Amino acid sequence: MNSPTTTAVSPILIAGRWRSANGRQTFSATNPATGAKLEGVYPISDWSDCEDSLAAAAAAFTSLRSVPAEQIAAFLTRYADRIEARADELSAKASEETALAVAPRLREVELPRTVNQLRQAALAAVNSSWRLPTIDSKANIRSYLAPLGPVIVFGPNNFPLAFNGVAGGDFAAAIAAGNPVIAKAHPLHPGTSRLLAEEALGAIQDSGVPSATVQMLYHLDPHDGERLVADRRVGAIGFTGGKTSGLKLKAAADRVGKPIYLELSSINPVIVLPGAIEERAEQIASDFSASCLMAAGQFCTSPGLLLLIASPESDHLIRQIADKFAATTPGPLLSADVANTLRTNIARLRESGAELLIGDAAAALPGHRHANTLLRITGQQFLDQPETFQTEVFGNASMVVVAKDLAEAVHVIEHFEGALTGSIYSQTTGRDDADYAALADLLRWRVGRLLNDKMPTGVAVSPAMNHGGPFPATGHPHFTSVGIPASLRRFTMLQCFDNVRADRLPAVLQDKSPVSQPWRLIDGLLTQGDVSQ
Amino acid sequence: MNSPTTTAVSPILIAGRWRSANGRQTFSATNPATGAKLEGVYPISDWSDCEDSLAAAAAAFTSLRSVPAEQIAAFLTRYADRIEARADELSAKASEETALAVAPRLREVELPRTVNQLRQAALAAVNSSWRLPTIDSKANIRSYLAPLGPVIVFGPNNFPLAFNGVAGGDFAAAIAAGNPVIAKAHPLHPGTSRLLAEEALGAIQDSGVPSATVQMLYHLDPHDGERLVADRRVGAIGFTGGKTSGLKLKAAADRVGKPIYLELSSINPVIVLPGAIEERAEQIASDFSASCLMAAGQFCTSPGLLLLIASPESDHLIRQIADKFAATTPGPLLSADVANTLRTNIARLRESGAELLIGDAAAALPGHRHANTLLRITGQQFLDQPETFQTEVFGNASMVVVAKDLAEAVHVIEHFEGALTGSIYSQTTGRDDADYAALADLLRWRVGRLLNDKMPTGVAVSPAMNHGGPFPATGHPHFTSVGIPASLRRFTMLQCFDNVRADRLPAVLQDKSPVSQPWRLIDGLLTQGDVSQ
Repeated sequence: MNSPTTTAVSPILIAGRWRSANGRQTFSATNPATGAKLEGVYPISDWSDCEDSLAAAAAAFTSLRSVPAEQIAAFLTRYADRIEARADELSAKASEETALAVAPRLREVELPRTVNQLRQAALAAVNSSWRLPTIDSKANIRSYLAPLGPVIVFGPNNFPLAFNGVAGGDFAAAIAAGNPVIAKAHPLHPGTSRLLAEEALGAIQDSGVPSATVQMLYHLDPHDGERLVADRRVGAIGFTGGKTSGLKLKAAADRVGKPIYLELSSINPVIVLPGAIEERAEQIASDFSASCLMAAGQFCTSPGLLLLIASPESDHLIRQIADKFAATTPGPLLSADVANTLRTNIARLRESGAELLIGDAAAALPGHRHANTLLRITGQQFLDQPETFQTEVFGNASMVVVAKDLAEAVHVIEHFEGALTGSIYSQTTGRDDADYAALADLLRWRVGRLLNDKMPTGVAVSPAMNHGGPFPATGHPHFTSVGIPASLRRFTMLQCFDNVRADRLPAVLQDKSPVSQPWRLIDGLLTQGDVSQ
Repeated sequence: MNSPTTTAVSPILIAGRWRSANGRQTFSATNPATGAKLEGVYPISDWSDCEDSLAAAAAAFTSLRSVPAEQIAAFLTRYADRIEARADELSAKASEETALAVAPRLREVELPRTVNQLRQAALAAVNSSWRLPTIDSKANIRSYLAPLGPVIVFGPNNFPLAFNGVAGGDFAAAIAAGNPVIAKAHPLHPGTSRLLAEEALGAIQDSGVPSATVQMLYHLDPHDGERLVADRRVGAIGFTGGKTSGLKLKAAADRVGKPIYLELSSINPVIVLPGAIEERAEQIASDFSASCLMAAGQFCTSPGLLLLIASPESDHLIRQIADKFAATTPGPLLSADVANTLRTNIARLRESGAELLIGDAAAALPGHRHANTLLRITGQQFLDQPETFQTEVFGNASMVVVAKDLAEAVHVIEHFEGALTGSIYSQTTGRDDADYAALADLLRWRVGRLLNDKMPTGVAVSPAMNHGGPFPATGHPHFTSVGIPASLRRFTMLQCFDNVRADRLPAVLQDKSPVSQPWRLIDGLLTQGDVSQ
């Protein structure tokens, strides 16, 4: 009874069962590699579906508060196992819906990453060190980071598994912190989301966590989305996607003080200093092109801007990059919309004065593709229209900014908006050190992750990762959406217990340390031990 | 040259010197105890003053990045010393401007608290454990919480020292985290703020930190305030004050993604269960009255709502409280505005059906005073108009809600808005345990600090304190404005260094642990040691 029935319209997952949506409108997915409409009809939910999911999530949150962390961890682990057991089918479906390659991308990289995140989150659920438990035994005041309520997760189009609303990083973080999730699947890959949600429900049943710990809707009217994030029963929101819809949701959540964690867009500047070009131009051209063109540039960390200082060597590097752009087959884009927006944005940059070095033409290949595109402007052009020239161009296009000298490069960086990443390549033996010193500190405060001699597209699931940064890259520069346990902190509230009787305290704040021995700040000292008597 | 000159209009502190404001409008303070206009004319700054302060703060932030933490700590310590050296004058001036008592309140409690906060912040500036330094040595990815830029601090009317924009908790936290501060003094106590800022400038000179590390404006047009918080050079904002102006600043900051930490208003419910009344009604009546009436109820944590379950014993407790309200001399209010708003809010509650038990009359005493006021409604009345009956009534007034039974009390709690605190009194030997279990979890998720058998008005400066809570009490439930080091985290951004060369890393992220030996999460293990080779 728990598998979706094969009615014409796919059911939604609400309160622990698959049931028909109340919304009457439907949509289907398309295979972007062929343009063919895919089997499967999915509902656009109306407000009553949202209402049902909120009521069930609120009840699940009440139940979850007394579920042991070990059981939440068991759910996450079991879910990871189930995704692995269905890996081939999931990868095939995701490829069909996104035109991303099964191998190596989906089956060998993104799915293992997804499973890895769920397992790391399971470990974090049990060990509460990341909750920063703090005890003042003299005053009998104790505090820690507790869950905060149902989390709405909006997944993006470009990672059908690792950032999927019902299985990805935000999902894993919200659940591990102790919150139920209402996932809003991305409408470009509903079939993948459905397969994942089937396994999530299976894992709920295997582990015995509350049945509405995970719910999923496929699609919503934007107005209902804004109402959903502002509902009083919601704890927080995670959103990865486009700036226009993200900022509307942010405004709705901000009005009622709901924490909303956004990952919106990022230009990810790469700066290559003269000595590095002299030393290893060929390697840099190769790395930059690969980073720009991998998965047709559809990464949040794809480098959209290359900043160079004018010289014959810089011109040569640009030609090498252009050659590689020309020699690389353009990859398929996620949808006709993505392709149209890419073309529109390139046109806008060209109309604003950017010189076309290569590309911006139709690609005579199946699916939605556009020729790999490289544009060029001067530092002065950038300074004249910094906002225009920081339009995120999502897809296989990038732009070179050639500053006339170091001073102009400094001014360009001073006009950078907040970004997820910023990379600087410099010579290995010190020739660029003075230039680096002049630029790096300026860049540092404008990006979440500063890289040396490395392209930004790899986002390791490392505890030290920051996939975040100043607005408009994200909504709050204090938090990261990748990296466990740090990403869990987004979905918590600080709870203080002042003079609360010992037997009423959560286990992690009692005098006796829990079995998992979390690090606790007790009377100013960090320790895994008990409160001394 | 650095002391204010005695021109008619007080100068503002910009870029390390006292200089005339460009704004032409002025204001003066009033002694609220007597209604007499005080000496001293202060400027209302125009945008050009804001612009100057922003430019200087941005430059100071660039300089501060290379100032050793020990030097920032020296500034904070020196400032604390200087405040102590001028304690009598500061307390006298603050009392003159606020009608708060010199002793014990200002001289013996608030000033020592202010100094204590600055000294604790100095310690936190040097030891970086709270920055959560995290190192993944295999991947060579490292991250920590870094400062984020100039912080605008708006201080409230009710704590002229401990929450003053130029000396209080937000100030200390922002500076210790490494950010310059632009303080917007509260216009009810400009003279106190001026004395403090004089000592801040002295401490800047003593310690050699950048001269614009601390700047101060007295007053602003609200439109300029909204422009100020949204300026691109701003890192974050701390605001403690009224809901109307706070929400306008929040909207302005939210639109451009600037973190704004607000403390707006809070009803601070106190619940007294039947067994506790039976056991110690007299003590509870005494504690509740004292908590409501101390400093004329002008605390953010003043209990504005007392929830009881109907019984003859509850009625008796209410009478005891009313008697204490009657027997206590009403304290002076901070201003005519505060008194007017208090009267208006009480009138609104009465018009909405609240029964007057005592008070709501003029008090024939000097200054702005209103009789201690106690109102009463039923649980059903609360449920019919939950928003109206959660109007924060700032001042010496409170309201009792009498639920007909436990089930109705549960419904009342379910309608509580986010608050800073929630207190539950229960019998010490277990009689109320079932009732506690039915109520406490509901209350827990609606408040930042849960108390047992204790009134909320004491806010200890403890590392375990949470002076925060869900909206509308604050703007973000993850953060606290009191408690060091936690309060510092508000004024930071997460910075990641990916493959950054060893000599370019901040000291706290290098392989070798800094002398202060902060706790660092290295390859999954928390340690004070070096990265192992």
